[in-house]
Amino acid sequence: MSLIDALNWRYAVKKMNGQPVEQDKVDQIIQAALLAPTSSGLQPFKVIVITNQELKEKIAPIAYNQSQIIDSSHLLVFAAQENYTDEGIDKVFDRMNTERGLPLDTTDAYKNQLKGMILSKPAEENFHHAAKQAYIAFGIALAQAALLKVDSTPMEGFNAAELDELLGLDKKQLKSVTLLPLGHRDEAGDWLVNLKKVRTPLSEFVIEYK
Amino acid sequence: MSLIDALNWRYAVKKMNGQPVEQDKVDQIIQAALLAPTSSGLQPFKVIVITNQELKEKIAPIAYNQSQIIDSSHLLVFAAQENYTDEGIDKVFDRMNTERGLPLDTTDAYKNQLKGMILSKPAEENFHHAAKQAYIAFGIALAQAALLKVDSTPMEGFNAAELDELLGLDKKQLKSVTLLPLGHRDEAGDWLVNLKKVRTPLSEFVIEYK
Repeated sequence: MSLIDALNWRYAVKKMNGQPVEQDKVDQIIQAALLAPTSSGLQPFKVIVITNQELKEKIAPIAYNQSQIIDSSHLLVFAAQENYTDEGIDKVFDRMNTERGLPLDTTDAYKNQLKGMILSKPAEENFHHAAKQAYIAFGIALAQAALLKVDSTPMEGFNAAELDELLGLDKKQLKSVTLLPLGHRDEAGDWLVNLKKVRTPLSEFVIEYK
Repeated sequence: MSLIDALNWRYAVKKMNGQPVEQDKVDQIIQAALLAPTSSGLQPFKVIVITNQELKEKIAPIAYNQSQIIDSSHLLVFAAQENYTDEGIDKVFDRMNTERGLPLDTTDAYKNQLKGMILSKPAEENFHHAAKQAYIAFGIALAQAALLKVDSTPMEGFNAAELDELLGLDKKQLKSVTLLPLGHRDEAGDWLVNLKKVRTPLSEFVIEYK
């Protein structure tokens, strides 16, 4: 299936049927998120994978009781770093140089310039930046899911502060930004499944400078 | 090619060879961005496609003279709305209902609730929200490019205010958020092409609740 076909096949499933997604497909979806590009390779986010049904039941009311939380087999939570840190940036560059067989100081000039720019910014600005990197991976993950004929529901409708407290993300300096329940559509029970996918016309979406 | 293979093939190309990308491939990349999901289907961003070489030469210094601006055949600019508007939200829901053959007031309860939430928020918060939607499409667009063996360089390193002024985006209530030059790698001239792709280990990237 082409990506365009997959994107036309997918929709924000409103009712899932409880059938589990095979673990190897979940692994591919997470791998796609891991491979997503991020600013300076910093990957300032984590993917939390929740299969525990009791925990999903606690999350449901935090997400306005959207049924996909419970009826999905795997609930992914994309959580971005609250801020960048000196040690975190060092760790990324040290790993990169080590894996490339290069001396650790190879990238010091670039790294120090980057730290100078990032670490002087307000935490809130850096959190928005980190969250945006998570959204790149979020888009790629849901595209990978669709290519595997795995349904998903991109969700921003939840109380992030309550979810962070429930999952103890504050203690990890993380904040949840999006949810992606994975499962399979319940065609008989989903009001959205047969409605036309509507997008802005290409002529309004694109501005050309030839 | 699988998406995982495509994501492993791609990298943030540092030197492009000037060979043009076929228009039908560019069309597919834009179509993938158009099909990307967005919060409540609002699609609060545009994709600007620049092939004009003189204009690219004016943009290069705004993007720290990164050579891909000039050596790409198509420079995509993802630009998010400065804010959401009452009329803009009406337009989205009117189009959706019209294309689905439903009365325009079908979604009024949901639409008015959405307006109540969004339009009371500060413009800056809404701009961040709109930008995040653009990042979903940005991720999907660069994944589509890689699947077509089209190279690209995801770029945040540019002066957005200067670019917005050059392109007159402020008059369209838009702000540029990311660049995506499309082209082909110059393997002989690119220092990054043969360096290992490095990512955080899966064990650090994923947090599981079983």
